[in-house]
Amino acid sequence: MDITTLLKQRTSITKFDPTQSLTDAEIRELIACAIEAPSSYNLQHWRFIAITKPDDKQRLMQVANGQVKVTEAPVTFIVLGDLRAIEKLPNIWGRLVQTGAVDQNFADSRIEAAHRFYGTNEQLIRDEAIRSASLAAMTLMIAAQAKGWVSGPMIGFDPEGIKREFGISDRYVPVMLLPVGYVAPGNLPRKPRLGVDEVLAFDRSREF
Amino acid sequence: MDITTLLKQRTSITKFDPTQSLTDAEIRELIACAIEAPSSYNLQHWRFIAITKPDDKQRLMQVANGQVKVTEAPVTFIVLGDLRAIEKLPNIWGRLVQTGAVDQNFADSRIEAAHRFYGTNEQLIRDEAIRSASLAAMTLMIAAQAKGWVSGPMIGFDPEGIKREFGISDRYVPVMLLPVGYVAPGNLPRKPRLGVDEVLAFDRSREF
Repeated sequence: MDITTLLKQRTSITKFDPTQSLTDAEIRELIACAIEAPSSYNLQHWRFIAITKPDDKQRLMQVANGQVKVTEAPVTFIVLGDLRAIEKLPNIWGRLVQTGAVDQNFADSRIEAAHRFYGTNEQLIRDEAIRSASLAAMTLMIAAQAKGWVSGPMIGFDPEGIKREFGISDRYVPVMLLPVGYVAPGNLPRKPRLGVDEVLAFDRSREF
Repeated sequence: MDITTLLKQRTSITKFDPTQSLTDAEIRELIACAIEAPSSYNLQHWRFIAITKPDDKQRLMQVANGQVKVTEAPVTFIVLGDLRAIEKLPNIWGRLVQTGAVDQNFADSRIEAAHRFYGTNEQLIRDEAIRSASLAAMTLMIAAQAKGWVSGPMIGFDPEGIKREFGISDRYVPVMLLPVGYVAPGNLPRKPRLGVDEVLAFDRSREF
């Protein structure tokens, strides 16, 4: 299918077929696509917990405003952003040096630049954790659509409850819940968007 | 091309061919794809300013840490998130009622739910503006890739400078600069990511 058609057919699903599942290999392949999203300084703030077991799905539903889609979808990803992603940079760039992709001086300069850029600016660090995790989540949704699956991104959940129930430490911010699976009947049709020229300006700003 | 291949080939470009341009129709088509990203309550926080004129590109470069790619790419989108997106909901849902897609009671209930959810929680409102604009930006990058163009998302800019230079009011948060165009020689190769099992856990959290 043409990618433009695919993007325009993707819609947020609430009714998943509870009789169909995804294999662990299929779940890994979705993540393999998601992590190809762009990443500031290759920090890769995104982390994913795949919730697939019935008991865990029930616990997830309790902290997701009782929304049953997390129990009916074969997998729901808890998409996290790592607020301390910068600590991984020596590891990440060290591997690039080892493979000869970059030299040590270049790696050091990028790591220093990342520290200068983010510093201790907590708003910027949180913004980027959300931005990066969202870029990965969107990539995951498009990959799922291409494979004939559907997704239904959710922000209606209790972040502290999610962290408590699944033992997620404060270094991670829950950015989204992302059920993925097979479509069932009963979904609402796609909702039209504002027109292109209602959200796009050329060269000058305006009140949109 | 297979979508998975396309996702894995996309990479962030710094060297754009300054001799090639995009038409306004091509720019609009990219936005037509971007706005198909999922949207909380159909709020559509994303807004875009397409910077295409030489003088504007120079001004943009001044507030983007002097990065020349915004002058060499035929278009750079200033991707904004609307912190007051909720004010558009009666308009957005009113149109759905007019077309018969939903009835007035349903529309009213969704608008009320959105107000209950976001309230005056400024962190949540900012988070969602960034999340939504990022989902749209990722969709735009994938659409561009599918059309044979390239992109190079940037967060290295002065948000207040961008707002000042382009007359952007405080209701909008600059989320990203997104140059799009044709690739030129001299780009760095793609950088490998952490492995799937370094960022994915099944059913239980862990320190990643």
